[in-house]
Amino acid sequence: MPQDHLVTAKELSRDDIEAILDRAVEIADDPSAFRERHADTLLALCFFEPSTRTKMSFDAAAKRLGGETVDMGSVESSSVKKGESLADTMRVVEGYADAIVLRHPSEGSAKMASEFVDVPLINAGDGAGHHPSQTLLDLFTIRESAGLDDLTIGIMGDLKYGRTVHSLSTALTNFDARQHFISPESLRLPRSVRYDLHEAGAQVREHTDLEAILPELDVLYVTRIQRERFPDENEYRKVAGEYQIDAETLDDAKADLSIMHPLPRVDEIAPDIDETTHANYFEQAHNGVPVRMALLDRLL
Amino acid sequence: MPQDHLVTAKELSRDDIEAILDRAVEIADDPSAFRERHADTLLALCFFEPSTRTKMSFDAAAKRLGGETVDMGSVESSSVKKGESLADTMRVVEGYADAIVLRHPSEGSAKMASEFVDVPLINAGDGAGHHPSQTLLDLFTIRESAGLDDLTIGIMGDLKYGRTVHSLSTALTNFDARQHFISPESLRLPRSVRYDLHEAGAQVREHTDLEAILPELDVLYVTRIQRERFPDENEYRKVAGEYQIDAETLDDAKADLSIMHPLPRVDEIAPDIDETTHANYFEQAHNGVPVRMALLDRLL
Amino acid sequence: MPQDHLVTAKELSRDDIEAILDRAVEIADDPSAFRERHADTLLALCFFEPSTRTKMSFDAAAKRLGGETVDMGSVESSSVKKGESLADTMRVVEGYADAIVLRHPSEGSAKMASEFVDVPLINAGDGAGHHPSQTLLDLFTIRESAGLDDLTIGIMGDLKYGRTVHSLSTALTNFDARQHFISPESLRLPRSVRYDLHEAGAQVREHTDLEAILPELDVLYVTRIQRERFPDENEYRKVAGEYQIDAETLDDAKADLSIMHPLPRVDEIAPDIDETTHANYFEQAHNGVPVRMALLDRLL
Repeated sequence: MPQDHLVTAKELSRDDIEAILDRAVEIADDPSAFRERHADTLLALCFFEPSTRTKMSFDAAAKRLGGETVDMGSVESSSVKKGESLADTMRVVEGYADAIVLRHPSEGSAKMASEFVDVPLINAGDGAGHHPSQTLLDLFTIRESAGLDDLTIGIMGDLKYGRTVHSLSTALTNFDARQHFISPESLRLPRSVRYDLHEAGAQVREHTDLEAILPELDVLYVTRIQRERFPDENEYRKVAGEYQIDAETLDDAKADLSIMHPLPRVDEIAPDIDETTHANYFEQAHNGVPVRMALLDRLL
Repeated sequence: MPQDHLVTAKELSRDDIEAILDRAVEIADDPSAFRERHADTLLALCFFEPSTRTKMSFDAAAKRLGGETVDMGSVESSSVKKGESLADTMRVVEGYADAIVLRHPSEGSAKMASEFVDVPLINAGDGAGHHPSQTLLDLFTIRESAGLDDLTIGIMGDLKYGRTVHSLSTALTNFDARQHFISPESLRLPRSVRYDLHEAGAQVREHTDLEAILPELDVLYVTRIQRERFPDENEYRKVAGEYQIDAETLDDAKADLSIMHPLPRVDEIAPDIDETTHANYFEQAHNGVPVRMALLDRLL
Repeated sequence: MPQDHLVTAKELSRDDIEAILDRAVEIADDPSAFRERHADTLLALCFFEPSTRTKMSFDAAAKRLGGETVDMGSVESSSVKKGESLADTMRVVEGYADAIVLRHPSEGSAKMASEFVDVPLINAGDGAGHHPSQTLLDLFTIRESAGLDDLTIGIMGDLKYGRTVHSLSTALTNFDARQHFISPESLRLPRSVRYDLHEAGAQVREHTDLEAILPELDVLYVTRIQRERFPDENEYRKVAGEYQIDAETLDDAKADLSIMHPLPRVDEIAPDIDETTHANYFEQAHNGVPVRMALLDRLL
């Protein structure tokens, strides 16, 4: 990591990633050893758009390290409504806290903000841009279940708009992973991401159908297909239906296939999968706490 | 208590109630003895509808025990808006915290949620359903002022829709209490609650007027009559006016009559009662902290 | 200070102010010496209208002293919506916390609230009324840069509606300060404030233009001119434009002129000033934490 901020997963080398994940394992194994580690730390939570999971798990992570948080509150209750620039807000907040977690709807906002502040800043999602701590918890979850090397992963659903998918697939190029992308034609991985993966020497294949490739997968990463992407409700239903899975779908899967999802899910994964050993998405969400603890520990 | 959750006051035996209230007395007498008792505990506050009093006092209770809280935030800023089920939200949140406090507008939601999580879950109000920690603080307040046995209590106002009243009257059947219900005919205690009280052998009488019964009462528990319950504004004013009390109303009351109210009040209790020794409703609200501390102490 | 509340800066004598600012200097110099000082303190944050800066810095201040906060949440999610009076809300909240910070849109609300509660209450802004902790951090910032005695200060912008300006100018009468007020005729300091300053023997002059007086100033305190104050957009643009400053404006200023602003700013101070040594407004915002820590330390 070239600096004290974390704006994109691209800044993370394989060594960076492994150091953070190793630390997260230590934390998950013995959280009590870390409970006073950052006892005097105040973390500012600046969420310019809503997020349950990311915000709660950063909040929990700071507190599990013995630290505290101060919350900017919603945009409706902030100076932003009075016309304050993001740069000004960030320069004020850096005086209140030891580090900043920023979520903002505009792509590039976290990069810009990081140039104005001296305390560590973590990008917790900048529109269609990046969300590197999500990538770290995804990598952690994959490593715990299937390992990051000699991995065959399928990534299915909306591959066009999902920043989660773009970050994860890019990060996986640091490892020996075969990546299979499964989506309708209209929601293919963008050309720019495919180009980057190609440049990085990634082993990539694209599919419109899960069936043929399913038996080879160690991990199936499912994402939500959003209704808003389709002009026509019927078109949406038809497409979305083809990329939903249930217990029956998994008949041909490996016994230890791990199913992941960044959540929230709607209909992509049927509830009958929840009770199977394949279901790994709640565990994945829970991993947000030790991984974000490890990340804070590294930056503070 | 059959399990580690608290969904309804009905789950609480007389022994359970007394153990919690005894602990609350210890806490109120010497809070400093408990200030590190749950120093590593993280409590998740999941309020799917607003609540000032309940949320703030659970928040204070966790912190007075040395613990911390993580707040889900408002529904507008949560994954619920993206269509996530309550079961999924709860299964995610249980990974972030050591216990969950849940308020939700749907009756039965807390029961359902408790079946999906392994950490203790406290129902902080499920629509027209239950709100057991309110009942515990009501019982604590009654015990402190008049005692729970050989008690004569009047419960007045909206007895039809008030879950607070239903829970309290049910819980009082564990004790030797004479219960007088005072309300307009249209807001009588529901048949089902009357049936339950009868089955439990409660000593119950109903009145449409406070005057005759007032001199016998040790406690008068007043609730708000809501405008929304009446199709006609004039009808509302007439009925509500008959169940408002002021200092003069209390001329015939016992000298040590304790007046309670779950708050917020609007016009039910005139401000001239606030300065009398009868006024016990602010004390009742304050009791929320030691009682919720005792409850958390029991479940954690 | 006559009591344990802080409602207006007028209650503060020169000795009170200096004691608080001296303590704030101690805190800023060695915050770690204070990090357990109020370890068992719970501060209630009751913000009936939005505020990023004030709320976050009180929150940070309590936590930097080892204490904790409980947040009432927004008015939309509070009992206020059910018709509860401010007096009732305050009497409930005082049972949950050791001190209260109150922001409320109605002038006089903090004074009224302070009469109902026994725990210390700090006014964090009551409409067009007072905001004494802002005044303290302004005084702290002036003292750090130019000193409070033998001071020549210019206060520019909206002098009619800005409570910040009224409080600061009144507080400065405790010190040997020459005050220059620079504003359009329509936004002059109100007659009542001018009268109070005159009665206190303040050295005051009014100007419609910055240019002539600029070379004499040690401090220039800029405030925002709000569009809402003008019936006509063109009139607003013309007036506001005359009271905006940029690096070029400052050619004739003293080398050590300190520029302050209560923030948020919109266009009053051009970004090219941010990188000059004159810019003191972010430092001023940051001073909110040690000053509010010192204030809490005095009241608790």
